[in-house]
Amino acid sequence: MKIAIDAMGGDHAPKEIVLGAIEAVKDIPNLEITLIGDKEKIAKYLTSDHSKISIIHTTEVISSEDEPVRAVRRKKNASLVLMANEVKEMRAEACISAGNTGALMSAGLFIIGRIKGIDRPALSPTLPTQNGEGFLLLDVGANVDAKSQHLLQYGIMGSIYTEKVRGVTSPRVGLLNVGTEDGKGNDLTKKAFNELKEAPINFIGNVEARDLLNGVADVVVTDGFSGNIALKTIEGTALTMFSMIKETMMSNLKTKFAASLIKNDLRVLKNQLDYSEYGGAGLFGLAAPVIKAHGSSNARAIYSAIKQACHMVENNVTQTIETTIHSLQLINEEE
Amino acid sequence: MKIAIDAMGGDHAPKEIVLGAIEAVKDIPNLEITLIGDKEKIAKYLTSDHSKISIIHTTEVISSEDEPVRAVRRKKNASLVLMANEVKEMRAEACISAGNTGALMSAGLFIIGRIKGIDRPALSPTLPTQNGEGFLLLDVGANVDAKSQHLLQYGIMGSIYTEKVRGVTSPRVGLLNVGTEDGKGNDLTKKAFNELKEAPINFIGNVEARDLLNGVADVVVTDGFSGNIALKTIEGTALTMFSMIKETMMSNLKTKFAASLIKNDLRVLKNQLDYSEYGGAGLFGLAAPVIKAHGSSNARAIYSAIKQACHMVENNVTQTIETTIHSLQLINEEE
Repeated sequence: MKIAIDAMGGDHAPKEIVLGAIEAVKDIPNLEITLIGDKEKIAKYLTSDHSKISIIHTTEVISSEDEPVRAVRRKKNASLVLMANEVKEMRAEACISAGNTGALMSAGLFIIGRIKGIDRPALSPTLPTQNGEGFLLLDVGANVDAKSQHLLQYGIMGSIYTEKVRGVTSPRVGLLNVGTEDGKGNDLTKKAFNELKEAPINFIGNVEARDLLNGVADVVVTDGFSGNIALKTIEGTALTMFSMIKETMMSNLKTKFAASLIKNDLRVLKNQLDYSEYGGAGLFGLAAPVIKAHGSSNARAIYSAIKQACHMVENNVTQTIETTIHSLQLINEEE
Repeated sequence: MKIAIDAMGGDHAPKEIVLGAIEAVKDIPNLEITLIGDKEKIAKYLTSDHSKISIIHTTEVISSEDEPVRAVRRKKNASLVLMANEVKEMRAEACISAGNTGALMSAGLFIIGRIKGIDRPALSPTLPTQNGEGFLLLDVGANVDAKSQHLLQYGIMGSIYTEKVRGVTSPRVGLLNVGTEDGKGNDLTKKAFNELKEAPINFIGNVEARDLLNGVADVVVTDGFSGNIALKTIEGTALTMFSMIKETMMSNLKTKFAASLIKNDLRVLKNQLDYSEYGGAGLFGLAAPVIKAHGSSNARAIYSAIKQACHMVENNVTQTIETTIHSLQLINEEE
């Protein structure tokens, strides 16, 4: 199995990308990795012999400031674009970037293409829950003007991924909504509710944002706008609270002493809420597994994302989505 | 000034409602309160002489399980309905309930009515920020299928309230969106952005959910669906984190000892995040101040909500909204 990785994307590229790749080829049998980026900068961290890692050299990069669609069209030799080409031309079976999310979505759409029958890909991170199981939230922003049939497809894709890759039998799929009762919601969720009810998934109905981190569902379906709000609200609230706790701990000698006693335990807590442990966010609905690793990914997060991509390939997630959607005759009317 | 209060709404009614009212008439000069509910149950807590508190007796109540619109139409003698009547018939200048939110909105719309020119009322809580200033979030669910002109009106109403009641000069009004750059968002926010830009408010552009608790804006405008998701995600994330912290603190003898040293400081932190301190959620856009106090309101939260209602009356918030909207010729096309 071969995975293509954008070595120049993310805050700690290429160092942490290369170190994550080295760890992965050591651990995962039959894995080969193609790193795309500046050969010289990559070589600095590829110290020993790595027969299972090859490099495609390029100095062009897409930065986080680049306008996604334009960048993908114009920067033909950017590491992210060449990475997508490896998948398109079937020299790699999946790809990973920690770079510009919009550019990765554009490269996915324009270069790799969608699964037939899927209207819109969904950006799908796995988020932590209190019990450590985690849940898949999709979409968190690939498609901010979703229609009900998109939400239906998200439910099906999320269920297949969670069953095949995360090993959850008959995953509970919930619809993010303003109340738990049937019939609640806006026009979009009311319509999507009825479509999800008929889908070949374990649809448990509406779920509220308040219960997300309690593990109320294994898969939570929502439009890209609301999903983005939910994701960033979780991040922001957690960060603010940690910052306030830190302030509280540093406020006087007594609290400083207490802090010294529990700082390791609090670090464990912080790690529990760190979703890089769950891999990156899949861009479900594309013709091959495409993973967006978090921009701040360290080697461990890259390693997790590689493992995730391998699982998606091994378990035929893409093919299963395609077959399921086709059997439901959910062929996109927009195509 | 006279305020009508639903004495039977909320988890701790009537006790905490009555105690909050007693505190308020003691503190606020020229305030009279009409409590609506079961005279016998209310009298239990009205121990001494309270010439400034009167009671309208009724035993009918709207519960949290009641379907809002139907309940308001059929339960003509429910405490919440009689409370709205007091305002409609001008025997009270504002009203407060900690009961069924949907029923309060329905009673507000059908009995009290809207400000001319306002299409949809907005449920508008003030939420805590790390610096203790707080911010107004509207709408959080009164109108889950908002149009851009609704968001424009929310911006204007929120700005007027924040200036007049919270004393913030030229409040910073932000639009909740998936990115901070101009041009980001879904069809609704792109359109609303352009309308808010032209409004007579201090519009600072798009704000992200990640920055809400940092105090990125004094007023955050959003549609009722996304606002509800943001509000409940903040609540859920904070609750989950406190629960995880508690678990961490109780995990062994060392952490238990540390916990005993800092538990008071952590309680202060918890209070900082408790938005009952900021009063209830205003239902802006109605022809009189209507406040939804939190369902779990204690006497202190009811007291805050009463103070808030008094400030809204004293500072002519309703009249100012009406004048501003009229001067902008934002007369509702739907009327």
